[in-house]
Amino acid sequence: MPPRTEADVPGLVERARAGEARAVARLISLVEDESPRLREVTAALAPHTGRAQVLGLTGAPGVGKSTTTNALVRELRARGKRVGVLAVDPSSPFSGGALLGDRIRMQDHAGDPDVYIRSMASRGHLGGLAWSTPQAVRVLDAAGCDVVVVETVGVGQSEVEVAGLADTTLVLLAPGMGDGIQAAKAGILEVGDVYVVNKADRDGADQVRRDLRSMIALADRPDDGWTPPILATVAQAGQGLAELVAEIDRHHAWLQETGELGRRRARRARAEVEAIALAALRRTWGDIGGHAGLDELAAAVAAGETDPWAAADRLLEQVRA
Amino acid sequence: MPPRTEADVPGLVERARAGEARAVARLISLVEDESPRLREVTAALAPHTGRAQVLGLTGAPGVGKSTTTNALVRELRARGKRVGVLAVDPSSPFSGGALLGDRIRMQDHAGDPDVYIRSMASRGHLGGLAWSTPQAVRVLDAAGCDVVVVETVGVGQSEVEVAGLADTTLVLLAPGMGDGIQAAKAGILEVGDVYVVNKADRDGADQVRRDLRSMIALADRPDDGWTPPILATVAQAGQGLAELVAEIDRHHAWLQETGELGRRRARRARAEVEAIALAALRRTWGDIGGHAGLDELAAAVAAGETDPWAAADRLLEQVRA
Repeated sequence: MPPRTEADVPGLVERARAGEARAVARLISLVEDESPRLREVTAALAPHTGRAQVLGLTGAPGVGKSTTTNALVRELRARGKRVGVLAVDPSSPFSGGALLGDRIRMQDHAGDPDVYIRSMASRGHLGGLAWSTPQAVRVLDAAGCDVVVVETVGVGQSEVEVAGLADTTLVLLAPGMGDGIQAAKAGILEVGDVYVVNKADRDGADQVRRDLRSMIALADRPDDGWTPPILATVAQAGQGLAELVAEIDRHHAWLQETGELGRRRARRARAEVEAIALAALRRTWGDIGGHAGLDELAAAVAAGETDPWAAADRLLEQVRA
Repeated sequence: MPPRTEADVPGLVERARAGEARAVARLISLVEDESPRLREVTAALAPHTGRAQVLGLTGAPGVGKSTTTNALVRELRARGKRVGVLAVDPSSPFSGGALLGDRIRMQDHAGDPDVYIRSMASRGHLGGLAWSTPQAVRVLDAAGCDVVVVETVGVGQSEVEVAGLADTTLVLLAPGMGDGIQAAKAGILEVGDVYVVNKADRDGADQVRRDLRSMIALADRPDDGWTPPILATVAQAGQGLAELVAEIDRHHAWLQETGELGRRRARRARAEVEAIALAALRRTWGDIGGHAGLDELAAAVAAGETDPWAAADRLLEQVRA
């Protein structure tokens, strides 16, 4: 690879805002690499953000997330929307799993200047979801995307994290996947704004919808007045996608009317600021100029010479000094 | 309930050290309730801690954790050890699931002054494992237990957390539970020091041991020279327990010889001190005397008026001010 020239961040932001895909790609690379320019990029993007509708799309492997994302993009394009897709999903054909490429036909959108698709690494030193994902959302937002879809595989905590990232969280299920148990385990009953039972032409789809409805009714969800709809789709055949887009729009309108959109975004920003501040603090804890760092304090606790509360006090005194 | 009298913490610690079960119970209640005396209790315990061998015991529901704990306690008692058990497991008969009581025969140890058994709430505002569990371990350690067994149900992250808490982590499996997939998902391949295939008289036990051996060989484990043994037990019948105790002792000797025991305990103390310090910081972030708190900074980020790095800088400046 030829060495990259020094990035002209303001110029890149201008070109990304004008819709130039290469500038978008370069900016996402800058935030993804956690380059020294990361702060500069985020600061330059800030005034141009907050317009895009951010959709999270999650579900267990095999429920048809990528097929649904693809069909959703087509539906949104038919309405004249600019769309960005971030695939934070190691199994997604968008993020390199070309084995499924024939089924997914991402070629559908190749050459469409109003669709930007990018896979993101799922690692991230500040949590399961790539740390850079919210920054990449900012890039696509500033680049004029009306909708940004963040696709994550629903295992472990990632569906809860994507719910923190998105304005509207879509949870996908499919018949014959042991969904009931999966749902209860992963906490997806709490986080979905719109539920989609995909592959609805298969046996058991109605049962999954019924089970889901009763499980959601029992789940510990916020009492905010929103009852999540449970849709049926056959994404492969494009069935149910218009209804899905209608429900997404209805949820977005509800978010705006109730002020929940602002609260969700403030909560998201809060978590992000806090994570950055904690990471910065952690970096200093090993080496607090001349004072005992965390390692020495921990050794004293392990030896019974002090207790963890007293050690924490000393650590914080040094941060404040 | 009659109102509790003010706790005489130094007196309680003295009585607990003398082996008085009621004093142990009272001290655990004080740390479990996160009472105002929590810090005082932990400080009073600190000089008397560090002697007990801490065993973590984890596994999926149904593998026989409680039966194994019970058999292990019996085996340790036969060797003259004082034993404490903390059951952080909502499904454990120790923590109220008396339905299984007839099978488990906790009555085996009722009235034995050298066995202390306590169930712990699995909630905890600083993580999945009860925040108070490490404090309860300190109480039992100070009370002269030679071995403290912490039993946790192996779902989600808790087995990884118990590995952080324990000197030696025992991971239980059983035939016919879809163990291969379970193991790979939960990360237990990385954290076990000793693996136990319980119910080894059932079909498929040898296969589970073979699968486990090859999966462990492929897992991303620390290159520290310890090869985890994979034992077979029938805890219900007491079979294989002597071998289990021998392997636990062999691991403990290895921990001491290599200095790994000190490193593990320091790592544990480090995580604990850090969690306490972060929790203390978080409490201050909403209200930093006269300055913009985290909520205002988050609102500014959400509005595009500033970026998260700049907001984190301001937050930290205020902490340091």
